[in-house]
Amino acid sequence: MAAWARAVRGLLLDVSGVLYDSGGDGGVPIAGSVEAVRRIKASGLKLRFCTNETQATREKFVKKLQGMGFDISVDEVTAPAPAACRILKERSLRPHLLVHNDLVPEFAEIDKANPNCVVIGDAAENFTYANLNEAFRVLIGMEKPVLISLGRGRYYKETDGLKLDVGAYMKALEYACDVQAEVVGKPAKMFFESALAEMGVPPQQAIMIGDDIVNDVGGAQRCGMRALQVRTGKYRCIHTIADFQPTLVSSAVRSR
Amino acid sequence: MAAWARAVRGLLLDVSGVLYDSGGDGGVPIAGSVEAVRRIKASGLKLRFCTNETQATREKFVKKLQGMGFDISVDEVTAPAPAACRILKERSLRPHLLVHNDLVPEFAEIDKANPNCVVIGDAAENFTYANLNEAFRVLIGMEKPVLISLGRGRYYKETDGLKLDVGAYMKALEYACDVQAEVVGKPAKMFFESALAEMGVPPQQAIMIGDDIVNDVGGAQRCGMRALQVRTGKYRCIHTIADFQPTLVSSAVRSR
Repeated sequence: MAAWARAVRGLLLDVSGVLYDSGGDGGVPIAGSVEAVRRIKASGLKLRFCTNETQATREKFVKKLQGMGFDISVDEVTAPAPAACRILKERSLRPHLLVHNDLVPEFAEIDKANPNCVVIGDAAENFTYANLNEAFRVLIGMEKPVLISLGRGRYYKETDGLKLDVGAYMKALEYACDVQAEVVGKPAKMFFESALAEMGVPPQQAIMIGDDIVNDVGGAQRCGMRALQVRTGKYRCIHTIADFQPTLVSSAVRSR
Repeated sequence: MAAWARAVRGLLLDVSGVLYDSGGDGGVPIAGSVEAVRRIKASGLKLRFCTNETQATREKFVKKLQGMGFDISVDEVTAPAPAACRILKERSLRPHLLVHNDLVPEFAEIDKANPNCVVIGDAAENFTYANLNEAFRVLIGMEKPVLISLGRGRYYKETDGLKLDVGAYMKALEYACDVQAEVVGKPAKMFFESALAEMGVPPQQAIMIGDDIVNDVGGAQRCGMRALQVRTGKYRCIHTIADFQPTLVSSAVRSR
């Protein structure tokens, strides 16, 4: 075992495509992953679930994973919406939300009257022509448009096929308003840093495990962490953009 | 009068925002513009209407303008859809169409079975979540995705407010598929060149008149033409991107 591997004290674990495959009925665990999480926890390693999930509150997300048998709780999850809420509060921003209905409760305590920014997430069916025009009008009406995007994913796979992810719609609004979005969630450096802070582990002693070469591997490496890419989830998709090389590649997350 | 102005033999005229303001009921002519078209024609100058209109066939578009009193016929109009059809035929491309329902007849003679490219126009209400995902899946399924965009406009104004234009949705698909769209229509050089060829006038002897600094002024100047920007149409919108300087600015198109 390499010296760096012996020094690892914390793991960041992507969830969708690493622990389970999403589908119409909520998804199924990837073989060996329930046991892998159990053994990581038993080993004494620190662990955080680091997800770009924005189609549900953390509560609902965790409940789904618990239902599949995973040992996981809400306070072990680092997700974009609560990270965005911290930014909104710090900067006194009042968002116009273009997000999934199931994510709205995460913003319950945020003042949304007379918006001075737009927050976009993977709104799925809420990405209607009318809603996109409305978010655009709010943005273009600002003296200095502020667009906060919960991730910058290009697309993802569901049981009924590939779907455009939040990044595509973010690009549409960026272009129309001539602004650059602030990305919250992977691969943003600040997002990994807050996950590391929550574990109390420095980047040199942590490893990110994910299926996405840009969001998981690239993001973690830019943060000074090592990264392991699993060959599950979107790894199998046709087009990959390979600006990054993972430290390790594994066929799946499983205990040995 | 400057020497170049005396040498002008042909005019390219943008339509929406220059000759009329679009609205829910079809639009109203801008004061003086009906008479201006009549006098340009009477002067012996060559004239072409050079539009990025993709929400209707040329027939329907011309009928609307005739209804407002303009002296205009279908064979005087240079528009993106017929230009795209020429490209599709030349390169044996079979399009999946993401366009406005009223534009579909322009593609009547084009083979659309088993598509090997995507053509995107200002689809308006057809920009649904389902239609965008479908166009994306067709593109990402190709070995080398080909995306043809009927214009690259950011947004435009209608009576009920600003709307995202085709360029925003083009950017979404470009990002998701990591491709660059081929733009047909203004400001593409080839589009101006074909309008000039149709008039039989070289760029040095032609002038473009439009309200859009990028699509009209910038596009024409890159083509070696001079350009006059009118202060009607979208000129009044809040955000303008000023990489280009018009040769002339005029308050409106009108005869003196």
